[in-house]
Amino acid sequence: MLSYEAALARLIASAGALPAEACATDEAAGRVLAEAVRAQAALPPFDNAAMDGYALRSDGRAIAAGSVWPIAGRVVAADAPPQAPAAAWEIMTGAALPPGADSVVPYERTKRLDAARMRVLEDLAPGRHIRRAGSDLQPGDPIATAGTPVDATLRMLLAAAGIGQVQVKRAPRVAILSTGDELVADADAPLRPGQIRASNGPFLQTALTELGARVLACRTLGDDPAQFAAALAEVAVEADLVLTTGAVSAGVHDFVPAALGKAGAQLLFQGVAIRPGKPLLAARLAQGPLLLGLPGNPVATVLGFRFFAVPLLRHWLGRPPERPLLARLTEPLRGRGALRGFLKARVSHDGDGTLRVRVLAGQESFRIASLLQANAWATLAPDADELAADARVEVYPRDPDGRWRFD
Amino acid sequence: MLSYEAALARLIASAGALPAEACATDEAAGRVLAEAVRAQAALPPFDNAAMDGYALRSDGRAIAAGSVWPIAGRVVAADAPPQAPAAAWEIMTGAALPPGADSVVPYERTKRLDAARMRVLEDLAPGRHIRRAGSDLQPGDPIATAGTPVDATLRMLLAAAGIGQVQVKRAPRVAILSTGDELVADADAPLRPGQIRASNGPFLQTALTELGARVLACRTLGDDPAQFAAALAEVAVEADLVLTTGAVSAGVHDFVPAALGKAGAQLLFQGVAIRPGKPLLAARLAQGPLLLGLPGNPVATVLGFRFFAVPLLRHWLGRPPERPLLARLTEPLRGRGALRGFLKARVSHDGDGTLRVRVLAGQESFRIASLLQANAWATLAPDADELAADARVEVYPRDPDGRWRFD
Repeated sequence: MLSYEAALARLIASAGALPAEACATDEAAGRVLAEAVRAQAALPPFDNAAMDGYALRSDGRAIAAGSVWPIAGRVVAADAPPQAPAAAWEIMTGAALPPGADSVVPYERTKRLDAARMRVLEDLAPGRHIRRAGSDLQPGDPIATAGTPVDATLRMLLAAAGIGQVQVKRAPRVAILSTGDELVADADAPLRPGQIRASNGPFLQTALTELGARVLACRTLGDDPAQFAAALAEVAVEADLVLTTGAVSAGVHDFVPAALGKAGAQLLFQGVAIRPGKPLLAARLAQGPLLLGLPGNPVATVLGFRFFAVPLLRHWLGRPPERPLLARLTEPLRGRGALRGFLKARVSHDGDGTLRVRVLAGQESFRIASLLQANAWATLAPDADELAADARVEVYPRDPDGRWRFD
Repeated sequence: MLSYEAALARLIASAGALPAEACATDEAAGRVLAEAVRAQAALPPFDNAAMDGYALRSDGRAIAAGSVWPIAGRVVAADAPPQAPAAAWEIMTGAALPPGADSVVPYERTKRLDAARMRVLEDLAPGRHIRRAGSDLQPGDPIATAGTPVDATLRMLLAAAGIGQVQVKRAPRVAILSTGDELVADADAPLRPGQIRASNGPFLQTALTELGARVLACRTLGDDPAQFAAALAEVAVEADLVLTTGAVSAGVHDFVPAALGKAGAQLLFQGVAIRPGKPLLAARLAQGPLLLGLPGNPVATVLGFRFFAVPLLRHWLGRPPERPLLARLTEPLRGRGALRGFLKARVSHDGDGTLRVRVLAGQESFRIASLLQANAWATLAPDADELAADARVEVYPRDPDGRWRFD
């Protein structure tokens, strides 16, 4: 059976690239840059005042306390810089410096003597309280690399730099097929004996959306290979990725591997040395898309999504692979045998600046409630020895988008 | 001048409550629960098999290696539990246990002798490999508290528990008014001398959306008190919160305080002992909504949003206040005088499990590029002494939604 690392590497190696597409910056929040963005113009675009006060020409000499300056006029933001640099100009924050002016004396360090003159109250070094054109960005400076998600901060910088359009990765298109005669998708329908509520589809749908993927379909199917084959053929036309849940193990109704074979899919792997989620499989469908067959136990579905689908989606979007944090165990932890273990865990910070991790009770893969208590997955290498309290373990955030929630 | 803590407390004390509204669970991703949710039924709904194998009745005794069992039939998921508990039932993971059965022997620990009999290959303790009804959730068990955001994991648990509708907080309605004659909102329009591109509006719009607020309007206005007053009156009808940027300091065009007075607004505070962002003000408009007047420098806008608007929105949504992490300084840090300092910073984790924080170059409040390098705000109390390398400082994530990004 493949190790986690080998299985993931095989999946990623089978993933092609997603095309880029142009996107208005105004519409780009949540998308991921497909190419590096560089400044096209200087930011700020012109020398300007960092404070409200008076712009002066110091000629590189200290501006002396007690010196009296004639006031030539006033410059406010949006004014074109005046062409007469003589003497002092009253100036507002952000307004363009008059040509030749190289310093701003803030109001509070001056005294207005009359309409035409002011006195400087404290010595001021030359060159203070101004912002030079291009001091934040020079034309050609890198703004963001390919693979950067467009969030509020990047939108601000793109707007400030006048970049109205960016190239982003086309959103990955994903279809979800949950299998199981026992599944009831309608929350208002009563459960008959032996039935349970479908919960993998809602999880995957929301998680995919959080990651910037487009969910083409989210269907609940019975344990019926013909129905499955028909649904698969239908979604394979448009999808980059098909996620199935259930029917991948060795049970009587575990028809997915056979159905894939019949449909001409190329199996990439079946079974991975991980717990939970061991029966997970991956294939390339004849029509081109990849398929991840996630086991139907909810925690195995979540885990398989988190550690296979998420790296695949990040790869497609050009985002760098995630790196785990290291946190110190609050209690000793036994190894999990020959499989790589993924454990629901809670990472917190102590007053010392150190991250601590507590492995939660309720690790069984049918338990969803403990998943909600977790903010992390702790992972243990195959054949790991028992770890003592305070030992470091690798932890990944529970949230599929790779951000940490500590509250 | 008010301290940060006093100003924020005054703002929050002036915030009323937002109403709750019903929301289909399917549509609730990104919303925040307005009331605690409890399980209405047991999860799992019935005793079931944790493995594929044979369900037996052990009567509390060890199941002995070598024992041979007649096979009464087969139970797969979705089957109602059979009414004849005699002997062993072949059973699939998740299928209901026959009445009286209390253990499952996995296939791999059995040998099928013929169509009607199997032999157990290893001793098995009674009660293994089953999941009891209600062992994940009992009716009445808490699922999530009020104030919990609905994410993929909570959606899964709500779906599994059959909760088709939840009460969520109505999304806060926010209007954005950016002021400044110098602002150009159209990225394709060339800049005339003295003009800059509007970037605060795009930032606020995206950040608000990330936080689950509804942006009613995002307008760029000139330095024209009459235009401002008209826009304010228009958005105040529907908004819970109006965010303005610019024109709150003591400059020639800083007309917002006077305009608010004229409009009958009640000033909550004007000026806060923070850097950047000192001129920030808050008011209650005559029509009811709150207003935050953010300084126009981009970093001051971002900071004011992060440390005033975000806590206000969290309060409205019923989310708990954020708590900072503690991280250790990579280099010594000078105090920032009498104001509380907020510094663009980069928090990373070292191999030791410890969080380290580096205060970035480029702290000036016009510098947006360094904001993109930051993943955190480090904060320094007023009159803080110089801190040595390795000293702990409080850090907040840069991202407004309070999650940490370490990659």
